[in-house]
Amino acid sequence: MDLPPRILTDVDVSAHCVGMTHLLAIGGSDAGIAAALRARELDPSADVTVMLADSYPNYSICGIPYWIAGDVATEASLAHRTARDLETAGIGLLLNTRAVALDVEARRVETIGTVSGAANSVAYDEVLVATGAHPRRPAGIPVGEPGVVAVHTMADANAVHDAVTALPSGARVVVVGAGYIGLEMCEALIARDLDVTLVQRGPEVLTTVDLELGALVTAEVRAHGVSVATGTTVRGLEARAGEGWRVEATGPDPSTRLLRDPFELAVVCLGVAPSTDLAAGTGVELGHGGAIAVDDRMRTGVPHVWAAGDCVVTHHRLLGLTWLPLGSTAHKQGRVAGENMLGGDRRFAGSLGTQVVKVFDVVAARTGLRNHDAASLAGVSPMSTVAVADDHKAYYPDAVPLSIGVTGDQRTGRLLGAQIVGHRRAEVAKRIDIFAAALHSGSTVDEVSDLDLSYTPPLGSPWDAVQIGAQAWERTRHASQS
Amino acid sequence: MDLPPRILTDVDVSAHCVGMTHLLAIGGSDAGIAAALRARELDPSADVTVMLADSYPNYSICGIPYWIAGDVATEASLAHRTARDLETAGIGLLLNTRAVALDVEARRVETIGTVSGAANSVAYDEVLVATGAHPRRPAGIPVGEPGVVAVHTMADANAVHDAVTALPSGARVVVVGAGYIGLEMCEALIARDLDVTLVQRGPEVLTTVDLELGALVTAEVRAHGVSVATGTTVRGLEARAGEGWRVEATGPDPSTRLLRDPFELAVVCLGVAPSTDLAAGTGVELGHGGAIAVDDRMRTGVPHVWAAGDCVVTHHRLLGLTWLPLGSTAHKQGRVAGENMLGGDRRFAGSLGTQVVKVFDVVAARTGLRNHDAASLAGVSPMSTVAVADDHKAYYPDAVPLSIGVTGDQRTGRLLGAQIVGHRRAEVAKRIDIFAAALHSGSTVDEVSDLDLSYTPPLGSPWDAVQIGAQAWERTRHASQS
Repeated sequence: MDLPPRILTDVDVSAHCVGMTHLLAIGGSDAGIAAALRARELDPSADVTVMLADSYPNYSICGIPYWIAGDVATEASLAHRTARDLETAGIGLLLNTRAVALDVEARRVETIGTVSGAANSVAYDEVLVATGAHPRRPAGIPVGEPGVVAVHTMADANAVHDAVTALPSGARVVVVGAGYIGLEMCEALIARDLDVTLVQRGPEVLTTVDLELGALVTAEVRAHGVSVATGTTVRGLEARAGEGWRVEATGPDPSTRLLRDPFELAVVCLGVAPSTDLAAGTGVELGHGGAIAVDDRMRTGVPHVWAAGDCVVTHHRLLGLTWLPLGSTAHKQGRVAGENMLGGDRRFAGSLGTQVVKVFDVVAARTGLRNHDAASLAGVSPMSTVAVADDHKAYYPDAVPLSIGVTGDQRTGRLLGAQIVGHRRAEVAKRIDIFAAALHSGSTVDEVSDLDLSYTPPLGSPWDAVQIGAQAWERTRHASQS
Repeated sequence: MDLPPRILTDVDVSAHCVGMTHLLAIGGSDAGIAAALRARELDPSADVTVMLADSYPNYSICGIPYWIAGDVATEASLAHRTARDLETAGIGLLLNTRAVALDVEARRVETIGTVSGAANSVAYDEVLVATGAHPRRPAGIPVGEPGVVAVHTMADANAVHDAVTALPSGARVVVVGAGYIGLEMCEALIARDLDVTLVQRGPEVLTTVDLELGALVTAEVRAHGVSVATGTTVRGLEARAGEGWRVEATGPDPSTRLLRDPFELAVVCLGVAPSTDLAAGTGVELGHGGAIAVDDRMRTGVPHVWAAGDCVVTHHRLLGLTWLPLGSTAHKQGRVAGENMLGGDRRFAGSLGTQVVKVFDVVAARTGLRNHDAASLAGVSPMSTVAVADDHKAYYPDAVPLSIGVTGDQRTGRLLGAQIVGHRRAEVAKRIDIFAAALHSGSTVDEVSDLDLSYTPPLGSPWDAVQIGAQAWERTRHASQS
């Protein structure tokens, strides 16, 4: 029988934690919720609690830009599941409760109420550290001051939303950092009719794809009215009384000229770092990227302490151990942890770093390794090609070109990675997933041509674009060997 | 150095075939052209000729409905490559030349000019039989008489196009058979503002997917104004002077009532049979479905005689030998044959029967086996589930539900097949291809959840819909075992 629904606040914690085996997840985002759901799915009698520092369990952080843009009507729509859904699944929620210390001997978590300020403690039998990551805040960039915002928590989201809706049409906004969130925020700010400038250190936006493909995304962003300052490094933000923020930056003209006038709002999207404070002094070790070291079962090595999500190292199927925080990975790791905390023996199969972003009408996706990622692998001789192929038969209306990068090992022919950039209607995301599935199985590039993929003229070609990409790589390899 | 471009007609055949090693493909559609292109790609000095009975080399037969619909401006647009493209690739073309006999001892093909009527012969060193398939013409259905058309060759296409463009708006047209071509023709005829009735023997259209999913396609066809007579078998077509064609059919009321009045045009889409006349008396054997028996290198067993495409048996990765003619498969088989005719040793990796069709705003796709397909496999205990999941996060605009059928082996957990039906914008085609890639590698259903698939809210979910489908199957399996 399911436990009755319950939402607890920090004041009634002590009434809660008595008796039966208790699984506790610290963190209410992807990994924590995935673990809790999996545990309850496998054992409907499991006693499962999720503790979170705010009152937004299971919110889609990835959706914040779409709320800012106005595509998502209400903040509450961003919940993957409502608190009520989670209760129905039999998960207890400890809202507004920040874990401040982990006593691994006593199996207790010391907590502070983020609203009440009250100290308390929560006992556990098995605990999952799913504390996620936090935005990097380089010196000189005063995130949190009025007019300087990050985009990570729902509190951030509210701050950005308030700031943006208060700005007049045409107000100048600068976005610092042209990764996924930075690009999505540009689109959101343009939708809000603001004057948007994007600052990027590299020569093209979206450094997660090769320059040739990133250039297509840069062009798309510019075509939609964003001023893009490339090759430009932000040294700091300086407040100008009554004028907003002046960006101090080094870079080439005319990029720096784009930054000459002050901005009313600065949106800082410079990536994240793992949130690992709870691990301090517990014996839980840190690994790649300063993230919590776990094995592929999400064990930390300290008895009864598990960890998953953006705060842990990433097992990568090609690179071995790395740190590559992604929501889809956090879900998988959380699900593994939830199963194993109940005594299961599930292993995280590993990441391939598969990721996709929609930027205006273009989608850019990648999986696996690019040439220079693969160069570090022993015994691998990477080679990359880029081919262009239509998403479907050119005779059927609205065919669009896809740019398909393929990276493989010249020596063995093994597929190492792929990148695709194309129109948002061109099934780019699921095409990169075909490569991801082939990578998962250790396929060669040549074997991609053997895949029996679907074909109908409005949606594909007898050789799908991904196979045209693979065949281009094979031809280049053949030519280089003969 | 490339050979000079050349397009030959049957009258100058004798001038052509002298001297060097000569690869001849009989048939100018997918398999024949793919073989020729592959041979020329691997050996730019290869002497390669493609012989075809009409003057439409490398035409996209799959595109005919879109030409009829008016989506494709001209008949010529349906050419995957123009004759000039093929010449540039160094391929000789023998147009309007029908192969009527194969002398495997003398290595000669006896031909008749389809325009000139002249008999001739063409020598070869290696020959590929790529004669394709032809529409089934059941007794009582006089395809070829005025007002009764099939949709297979470009001659058929012209006949249908002429007939359709001559009809007044609102004229009654019956489509017999609700497979891929029948459904696409319904859409084309509705686009031409005709009054369309579709007759289908089974209870739903598109019998290649399970009834529950086929029902979604039936509903879509009806929603766009097509009258659908299900459970109805056509016994014959009877000409009524001045009135067109009366359909003689058995089936339930009101389906048969839909057929009471005569039709001005009948479009017959009852599937195809392999065209194997050339094999008679040569020692080339027939196998499944009456198709030419070949091994996975496309060898017929008769020296120097190869075969590929719709006229040959299909090596299926799950079923073993079968006959399953598809354009994408013909391309792969042709490519294998082209390589091996030059002395290579490529193997056809096998079909999974992956296929997709767009019907108005719905796409239906499948790969691998359905439950009843798998029931014939020794030692396999098939089980199927259908789950419904959104194509992308519901909070982002325009999310639509996908119905995802998964078939697996209860005993081993192995993935056996998948079916998806959903909106045409929901990346159905490439989602079925993710399953196809997983099937190719022999994945379990559970392992689909391990795939590192791409996620961004406008295009997917942290667990992609295909993974939701796989997890639903796993839950059902788990429940049935406990």
